Amino acid sequence: MPHLQDDLDHLKERMLVMAGAVEEQVRASVQSLVGRDHRLAERVLTGDDAINRLHIEIDERCFQLLALHQPVATDLRVVVSGVKINSDLERIGDFAINVAEATLRYLEHPAVKPLIDVPRMADIAQGMLRDSLNAFVRQDIRLAREVLDRDDSVDHLKDRVFRELIGVMCTDAAVTQPALELLLISRHLERIGDHATNIAEEAIFIVSGRDVRHHGREGGGRGADAPSPGEQ
Amino acid sequence: MPHLQDDLDHLKERMLVMAGAVEEQVRASVQSLVGRDHRLAERVLTGDDAINRLHIEIDERCFQLLALHQPVATDLRVVVSGVKINSDLERIGDFAINVAEATLRYLEHPAVKPLIDVPRMADIAQGMLRDSLNAFVRQDIRLAREVLDRDDSVDHLKDRVFRELIGVMCTDAAVTQPALELLLISRHLERIGDHATNIAEEAIFIVSGRDVRHHGREGGGRGADAPSPGEQ
Repeated sequence: MPHLQDDLDHLKERMLVMAGAVEEQVRASVQSLVGRDHRLAERVLTGDDAINRLHIEIDERCFQLLALHQPVATDLRVVVSGVKINSDLERIGDFAINVAEATLRYLEHPAVKPLIDVPRMADIAQGMLRDSLNAFVRQDIRLAREVLDRDDSVDHLKDRVFRELIGVMCTDAAVTQPALELLLISRHLERIGDHATNIAEEAIFIVSGRDVRHHGREGGGRGADAPSPGEQ
Repeated sequence: MPHLQDDLDHLKERMLVMAGAVEEQVRASVQSLVGRDHRLAERVLTGDDAINRLHIEIDERCFQLLALHQPVATDLRVVVSGVKINSDLERIGDFAINVAEATLRYLEHPAVKPLIDVPRMADIAQGMLRDSLNAFVRQDIRLAREVLDRDDSVDHLKDRVFRELIGVMCTDAAVTQPALELLLISRHLERIGDHATNIAEEAIFIVSGRDVRHHGREGGGRGADAPSPGEQ
């Protein structure tokens, strides 16, 4: 029978692999938008299969780990958080798909505007994803807290993108559809940041045993779908 | 020491309470839109606190149950699925908040169009939520499968709402903003249906031990954020 610690290490390893695959999907989806690269966007659409397999594999690992080792205390928290983080990662992968799909529709039209804030949002969100996973694996509370701080920047950028696009949306009928796609893309990126925030909150919970969710976040939401005052 | 079965029953009971509270939030948010009722929308915004408390309570219950009883087989699946379903419920509660927020912005403008498809979407999504939870609690696979079937209707309605609103969005500058809010609301409702689908998939997993996620759903997504061909 394998040791609990080995199984936990292996679980974390596989979660890092999944996070890497998900991050690559996010990167590629935004790259396909910025570089107007149809083929890259198409590749993102098929890149989801590997992530879905990892999603199921990691879920099973967590389940087996609980059944076999019946861990307690911090080890139990790692596994329960693993289940939740696994869902967050899978969801982020789905958002990358959403971005690629919107990109393919966007590319049917001429460019609406130079893309500055959207890639910036993507950069921050990818960094949040990477750091939140590292914070989980290394049980690094400081890094996790840094991730929480960065979520506001993503939200503010999305608000700006929304305002700007609503402004141009109807100046020209040809712009309505692509502007809407960009608007949806910026929302997907915002949600990726929110899921990374969830992961960071789990990392804090594992180490401190303290639940930092639903505290000090506007609207009482947990991040992912909290009210977004900028959508006006 | 309480018995495992008592604790499991109590867990399910509390999850039904949470689902009821979440469903009421969804109902009220859409009612505030249809009835142009500011005060009801405001009430939804504050109604999230109870759900957030339940979210934390249920998470703790699952954790304690694992630590105390170290359940195996079906009981273990119920608890692990409980953790995931709890996240889905909380997320649905956040979407109700999103709907209420968008409604408050929508109500600053004259009505864009008679609301027919949006309340219909909400009805189906609420039914899906209710039935998915019942399927989980009663371990009723047939009911869970019915929920999966209904997700397509919600998606189709959202596609129709999108098409219609994109058509009117720029006919009149005064309509752009409220049409966008309705469009976002229809997307929130679609995602509520997707989360109910997740819950139904967990219910099937508990009984059959078979993971029905990532099978036979377009785009490989798990529902919640799978590509949505109608957004064009």
